[in-house]
Amino acid sequence: MRVFVVLTSLLLASAAFADEGQWRPSQVTELDPARLRAMGLELEPSALWTKGTGGRLQAAVNYGGCSAAFVSKTGLVLTNHHCAYGAIQAQSTVEHDYLRDGFLARSPAEELEAKGRSTIAVLQKITDVTARVRAVADAQTDDAARHRAVEKETKTIVEACERDETKRCDVAASYLGGQYELFEYLYLRDVRIVYAPPSSIGEYGGDIDNWMWPRHTGDFTVLRAYVGKDGKPADYSPDNVPYQPSHVFEVSREGVQQGTFVAVVGYPGHTDRHLPVAEVERHVTQVLPTIVDVYGEWIALLEAQAKRSDAVAIKVAAQKKSLANRHKNALGMIAGIERMKLLERRRAEEAELKGDLEPLRQLSAERRKTFAKDFLLSNVGRGANLLAIAVDLVRRAEQVDKPDLERREDYMERNIDKLWRAQKRRLRDYDRGVDRALLHAFLARYDPPRAKRTNALLAKTKLSDPKVVKGYFDDPKTVKQTKDPLIALARSIVEDIEAMEERGDRRSGKMLVLGPKYMAMLAAVRPGPMYPDANGTLRFSYATVKGYEPRDGLWAVPQTTLAGVVEKHTGAEPFDLPKRVLDRKDAKRSAFLDPRLGDVPVCFLSSGDTTGGNSGSPVIDGRGRLVGLNFDRVWENIAGDFGYNVARSRNVSVDVRYLGFVLEGYGADGARLLKELGLKP
Amino acid sequence: MRVFVVLTSLLLASAAFADEGQWRPSQVTELDPARLRAMGLELEPSALWTKGTGGRLQAAVNYGGCSAAFVSKTGLVLTNHHCAYGAIQAQSTVEHDYLRDGFLARSPAEELEAKGRSTIAVLQKITDVTARVRAVADAQTDDAARHRAVEKETKTIVEACERDETKRCDVAASYLGGQYELFEYLYLRDVRIVYAPPSSIGEYGGDIDNWMWPRHTGDFTVLRAYVGKDGKPADYSPDNVPYQPSHVFEVSREGVQQGTFVAVVGYPGHTDRHLPVAEVERHVTQVLPTIVDVYGEWIALLEAQAKRSDAVAIKVAAQKKSLANRHKNALGMIAGIERMKLLERRRAEEAELKGDLEPLRQLSAERRKTFAKDFLLSNVGRGANLLAIAVDLVRRAEQVDKPDLERREDYMERNIDKLWRAQKRRLRDYDRGVDRALLHAFLARYDPPRAKRTNALLAKTKLSDPKVVKGYFDDPKTVKQTKDPLIALARSIVEDIEAMEERGDRRSGKMLVLGPKYMAMLAAVRPGPMYPDANGTLRFSYATVKGYEPRDGLWAVPQTTLAGVVEKHTGAEPFDLPKRVLDRKDAKRSAFLDPRLGDVPVCFLSSGDTTGGNSGSPVIDGRGRLVGLNFDRVWENIAGDFGYNVARSRNVSVDVRYLGFVLEGYGADGARLLKELGLKP
Repeated sequence: MRVFVVLTSLLLASAAFADEGQWRPSQVTELDPARLRAMGLELEPSALWTKGTGGRLQAAVNYGGCSAAFVSKTGLVLTNHHCAYGAIQAQSTVEHDYLRDGFLARSPAEELEAKGRSTIAVLQKITDVTARVRAVADAQTDDAARHRAVEKETKTIVEACERDETKRCDVAASYLGGQYELFEYLYLRDVRIVYAPPSSIGEYGGDIDNWMWPRHTGDFTVLRAYVGKDGKPADYSPDNVPYQPSHVFEVSREGVQQGTFVAVVGYPGHTDRHLPVAEVERHVTQVLPTIVDVYGEWIALLEAQAKRSDAVAIKVAAQKKSLANRHKNALGMIAGIERMKLLERRRAEEAELKGDLEPLRQLSAERRKTFAKDFLLSNVGRGANLLAIAVDLVRRAEQVDKPDLERREDYMERNIDKLWRAQKRRLRDYDRGVDRALLHAFLARYDPPRAKRTNALLAKTKLSDPKVVKGYFDDPKTVKQTKDPLIALARSIVEDIEAMEERGDRRSGKMLVLGPKYMAMLAAVRPGPMYPDANGTLRFSYATVKGYEPRDGLWAVPQTTLAGVVEKHTGAEPFDLPKRVLDRKDAKRSAFLDPRLGDVPVCFLSSGDTTGGNSGSPVIDGRGRLVGLNFDRVWENIAGDFGYNVARSRNVSVDVRYLGFVLEGYGADGARLLKELGLKP
Repeated sequence: MRVFVVLTSLLLASAAFADEGQWRPSQVTELDPARLRAMGLELEPSALWTKGTGGRLQAAVNYGGCSAAFVSKTGLVLTNHHCAYGAIQAQSTVEHDYLRDGFLARSPAEELEAKGRSTIAVLQKITDVTARVRAVADAQTDDAARHRAVEKETKTIVEACERDETKRCDVAASYLGGQYELFEYLYLRDVRIVYAPPSSIGEYGGDIDNWMWPRHTGDFTVLRAYVGKDGKPADYSPDNVPYQPSHVFEVSREGVQQGTFVAVVGYPGHTDRHLPVAEVERHVTQVLPTIVDVYGEWIALLEAQAKRSDAVAIKVAAQKKSLANRHKNALGMIAGIERMKLLERRRAEEAELKGDLEPLRQLSAERRKTFAKDFLLSNVGRGANLLAIAVDLVRRAEQVDKPDLERREDYMERNIDKLWRAQKRRLRDYDRGVDRALLHAFLARYDPPRAKRTNALLAKTKLSDPKVVKGYFDDPKTVKQTKDPLIALARSIVEDIEAMEERGDRRSGKMLVLGPKYMAMLAAVRPGPMYPDANGTLRFSYATVKGYEPRDGLWAVPQTTLAGVVEKHTGAEPFDLPKRVLDRKDAKRSAFLDPRLGDVPVCFLSSGDTTGGNSGSPVIDGRGRLVGLNFDRVWENIAGDFGYNVARSRNVSVDVRYLGFVLEGYGADGARLLKELGLKP
């Protein structure tokens, strides 16, 4: 039996009750406690975070750019399968394909080292360094110098902090440069894979279901953090011992239902909620349409080329997919911004502001003026392969003369292997016809007279020969001497890129003055506390489990079930369930059956305010217990980075009870892990 | 503001409250009146229909195979745009494209003659003729003779009835041949187009939205029926006067909302709800999979051929679309029958039956044995064009020797033009490569040794020459003499077709004995009255406006709105709204704004039990007032002809208030029609 009630109202959907906000930990106690209590928060907000001493939110950690959560005193960590993907892949071989088959350690000794970027940063301390950074900024009168001075000062602070090698540190700017904080993290370098589902669970639905609801993906993985015997962070060693976190989120079997209070706790990367209106307008009328226009043209060219042969189709597939993804997202964002009436809302607000907006408008106008060219320059790497190679060769040859620390990051010594791998990939995917089409399209926009010379350029360049490229790469001096026509073209492009970067520094420096003033104007008209844009630091977003109207005539019901997983099963990827799940589709005997649903819950929607970086975020209930892991947003929320849409901002989480159900299928080994997770009945 | 409550439960979804049933008019008073009242029927059931005298349901008429409704004493008729499509098309020219632009008569004089099959049959009388027909049937001991005797007897009854030339008559069999009734209709031959929306409203969503929810199609047209000055049916004449129907459905502006009682009244064509289980099994395991298999193969061949050139692609487009549609439907039906557990349900029921089921099982086994061949023979016309031509030429040459009334319908004199048009179309679409592929595929299944001769057959036949075909067509005798190899092949195929038809007669004759017995067994175990399968006669289906779960995690909300219409608008067909609608998208000033929705309602879902033929059916509320026009079912209900699915059987209607809103856009001319429709505030 299944009973559900969907109740919504545009009245409720007014700003007064918006679940908007990615709140800084210290702001949790500034939010209206009565409202949080009414929503279902039973904990005292101070238990989540108290200024100076921290709190339960510290159980949310940064796992290599994703979010994750400590869930046991024995160092167990929950995150998304897609966050641990690289680590699982790194351990996979033809004999042991853990991506395809999944992996469950039968004992701690069997846990697999999580290689690559699999480190865990545990937040220890937040220190306000605004005075110090702003003093440096305010001492400068030249815009570009101001930007560079701030960059140098923050680097200096970070370096000093990281002298303690157990730490990683970060100075994060908030409120458009109005506030700077030093974040200190305990940096755990020995992380191990305890359980990974097979991709047929962890990636169920694949690209087809990505961004979509209804969702049926078991996007979870269990890790464990280790430290040296002295309790301090250490590199991987069999002698290491499980890390004992100071804070953990207890895992709950009680689950959620429609209307349940939840909070998403994690490390959102970047949002643009406080852009001046002129900049929002520029995004809507210039930036996004340019992406649609240019990428749209390139995609069409690649599609036409792909028809030439299957071999060409394979060569262009990845490039086309990446462009098509960005193209689709840009279209979605334009539609989303329109649908939430963001511009109208923001314009109405800006009309109330007291202060001089003219300099901001001017700055936007400046950006607008150079954008067409800037966009092309920023996208050389996504276009014709040989030109991209030429530009990387020229830049490397110039950067190599500087001290390593002053180089652009891509050209630093530690990234040299990565840089070469990119060229190898380009050489592998190179096709004369494809490059001719893309190079012509690029030049027709960048420098039309030159476009006519496309054929000649490609006929004369030697850059399609891997040996030639390798020679230039290994001996950068030769790049400066060669007369290869593509490298000659790249020289002038790199000059333009450097001018663009110089412009960028200047504009950033100007924003260091204008940004804080604009935030102050906004703060004067917005009621209540104000959250800063996401900047990769710990944030708290309170929310409710609820559905939404994806389209007129449809209601997205906020929970999916095992029956829905099975319903999607076709036997072909990405809908090819393992027998372990299919055999147990009649879930009546599972300990994780939800009597309200009459089935095992799988995913749920809530009104959490999330963005990239929130992947793997613990979703906790009103008693601070982990009930799910955030792993996506819905397509109708794609413009969410520019503004929160009460009616459509929904994040997608996997219900931790689905992890429970899947682990049940592993017999005694699964039961052991369930017990350690606190999920055993 | 918009508030809606969705409440469902599998408990409610039990058979006890199923809105199943296409009830005969005389059964309306046999249904539980307390239940109908509780659902919302305020009228006395006897007002809808009383045995002998009829009632309000007579306002529902048959419009050329569709359903329709009288809505004014001045002869106005509402039906679907797609039902009047041929009539609108017949009046369209390059200068006046009424399909594209729509049409509104500014006065009765401007109304356009609805040509073609645009006749209206008004039910006058139902007479039970079971005794007479069964007496003839029961006098025969040979199965085939029994079938033919019944066919002859019913033709005789119809002919006698139609001696009154104002009438059309039909003897319809019910309960698998257990009952025969004579339906007498007043046959109105002068029908005119009063209002047709542009296809951008009437076909909004086109093939993309077909079968789908959410739906935003204004599938309505307003007609008027005329009679001679003497009040009797007459051919079109400017002197004719509007027909004054004895019963009309008043049109209501009050509309529906979730939970509203509605009833669908119309002429459903054919259902298979009482098939013996062995036959259901044969459909699921043989008939539908054969469609998927054979059509799937043919579609793949056509797709491969279409890649040869754009010209070939155009030639095969219609054929491919028709096959693809049937192929998709067969797949949907297999899935739908599985999903509603129809076989399990019917098997459990059959286990309770008292009586001999063996003869029925044997009959199914017989059908199963010959089906592979029968299917191919029935589909010659959908395959290779030249073979289809050859078969039609051979059949025509044989049938032409018989008296016209004894011929197969397609070959009767009155259909000769149509038959020639079919050959012309085949000659136009003929392509050697396509025919080679399809003929080879056909022969490989039909007579494998012959498949090797495909190339020789096509090389030697002259049937690709239109003059040759025309010669054979006009002089059937020459068909018997020719040695054209395709015609020779067609001769043996036609022999097989005739044997198949003979088998068919025999099996039908057998069912005349077995069918009524089986129905009696079913009636003994089913509680309450039993509705017969649809047979093209008037039926009443009570229902509730309600949504459903198309997939886990989604709820189809039962009403759509103007905002949703506008949301789908892309400017390209089939989503290219006329300015007339776009300009009025802020519907706040419309008299048809629904305050509950805060918008103009467009389409709605209800649990009506419908099938093909129900297109254009009036949907009436509990006071017998017309609130919408049925025009489709949802995809999840595609297997509905085999069984009613409480959770997913939903019919789609256009809300009559959307017609009101669209007419509002025509100023004074629209206002005049609104007033006549009773829709004027």
